Amino acid sequence: MLKVVVLGAAAGGGFPQWNCNCDICRAGWAGNGLARPATQSSLAVSADGETWFLLNASPDIRQQIGQTPALHPREGRRHSPIGGVLLTNADVDHVAGLLTLRESQPFSLYGTGRVLGVLTANSIFNVVNPDFVQRNTIELGENTHLLLADGRPSGLSVEMFPVPGKVALWLEDESAGKNFGTVAEDTVGVKVSDGERAFFYIPGCASCPPELAERIEGADLLFFDGTTWIDDEMSATGVGHKTGQRMGHMCMSGPDGSIAAMAPLGIGRKIFIHINNTNPVHLVNSPERAEAGKDGWEIAYDGMEVEL
Amino acid sequence: MLKVVVLGAAAGGGFPQWNCNCDICRAGWAGNGLARPATQSSLAVSADGETWFLLNASPDIRQQIGQTPALHPREGRRHSPIGGVLLTNADVDHVAGLLTLRESQPFSLYGTGRVLGVLTANSIFNVVNPDFVQRNTIELGENTHLLLADGRPSGLSVEMFPVPGKVALWLEDESAGKNFGTVAEDTVGVKVSDGERAFFYIPGCASCPPELAERIEGADLLFFDGTTWIDDEMSATGVGHKTGQRMGHMCMSGPDGSIAAMAPLGIGRKIFIHINNTNPVHLVNSPERAEAGKDGWEIAYDGMEVEL
Repeated sequence: MLKVVVLGAAAGGGFPQWNCNCDICRAGWAGNGLARPATQSSLAVSADGETWFLLNASPDIRQQIGQTPALHPREGRRHSPIGGVLLTNADVDHVAGLLTLRESQPFSLYGTGRVLGVLTANSIFNVVNPDFVQRNTIELGENTHLLLADGRPSGLSVEMFPVPGKVALWLEDESAGKNFGTVAEDTVGVKVSDGERAFFYIPGCASCPPELAERIEGADLLFFDGTTWIDDEMSATGVGHKTGQRMGHMCMSGPDGSIAAMAPLGIGRKIFIHINNTNPVHLVNSPERAEAGKDGWEIAYDGMEVEL
Repeated sequence: MLKVVVLGAAAGGGFPQWNCNCDICRAGWAGNGLARPATQSSLAVSADGETWFLLNASPDIRQQIGQTPALHPREGRRHSPIGGVLLTNADVDHVAGLLTLRESQPFSLYGTGRVLGVLTANSIFNVVNPDFVQRNTIELGENTHLLLADGRPSGLSVEMFPVPGKVALWLEDESAGKNFGTVAEDTVGVKVSDGERAFFYIPGCASCPPELAERIEGADLLFFDGTTWIDDEMSATGVGHKTGQRMGHMCMSGPDGSIAAMAPLGIGRKIFIHINNTNPVHLVNSPERAEAGKDGWEIAYDGMEVEL
């Protein structure tokens, strides 16, 4: 069994975003049901419904745990059903939540060498005490059984693989050089399996080259980068100048978009996640949301549960 | 005019705490009204009701902004009523929220040299782009007018002063030596004024020596460290071994507690904030809460509004 709970459906900044007053965020702030507020991108996964691994630790993690009864402590005085965290990159919206998972609680932390190196370089992450939280390096392309802090198997295994993207924005200056990230470990997708079933989680992806298409073809379930609807959405909505491409994200629509790219791949269930605050699919009655739905895509929301 | 909104009433970890199943947290998880959930310690202050300064940036800041209409963006496409942030120390529950205040939004950041140095040493805080967010060093004991990012006065001034305490837990090993913090800038209180009225915010304080008593005597309003009810609360509730003292906090009750210490000081309104998850005052029907109330203390809650 693979149980998945969407802890956060939105991209970095969440929806609505703290300083955004675009038409779509305004609907979010209004709280009138036209757009459902969403926290920042994260999934919880379990093979037994008891112990959960988080895929990324969002800054909203405390709120997300509060909203998710399966993640509330159950036993003894100190306890958490969270057995571990797997990081897909070093974006603030994917790692800042670690700062909340303190208080000497054992769990397992997994990430690529590059991502774990970022934690080491920022001593504030020492609040996640290495005496209790083992940091495990994952090699790209290798199937890795996720273990709990006491060494027991979680029943989950993962394979991380590079996808087109870019380095985390805040690392650009110091490590990315002029190309903003072609280092393989900067942007990764992950295949999560319980040995029988599997799904893909690819919250950031700049394009879909043939090797990626081949990898995900025929998958039962895919969570995919739903950052933007069109590539120049930031400028079109008047909130910025960067394109989706420049931020390492392919858009949903159009001939180069993810909807077109995934259409021929025979994927069982396709769910957009990591949805930027400017993306009109946040609006329940938008034509864009209807169009995505017509092509078989679901839009993730906080609390969404999927079982394989 | 001084308007204050309590953004978060709880200590680090919030209430309930993610991995805590003590009797008091259990009431918080149950959501049955016996204990009101609370986010991590932070205040918003305004002299005009339009532009706000945050006293500390808690990891829950995105949730806190969502819960506080006065902090929602109002104008243009990108906007925030948050004009600045003042940090009282480098505790994770006081600085991690800065990681949410990104997206090239101008605001003013104030803290002691020691606290701002911690941000510099952790490059992840570069997401708060220095091109937009000026970092201003405050000297202890000096009255400082808080300016907005464009140089206009906010109408607020602050004086920060040392109080007995300790260095942030995660900095202990590298900077505190054996005494766990007698460096003056490690734990500070702050007096906030609009030129006519003033209040004190002291979210962490290990004792009340004569110079502190003298300083706050006769104040109109005091927000004070409400971490623990008794000093050995962590061990009494079975969740840890550190005393409140060891964590840099004086307890509320008893002859050495804050209730007794402040009783003779003629303070107009006394409000406990930074309340640890183990503190029974979280329970609306606890004898401890009643006892604090009898002595004229209020217990802060998320969304509490106070005006001077």
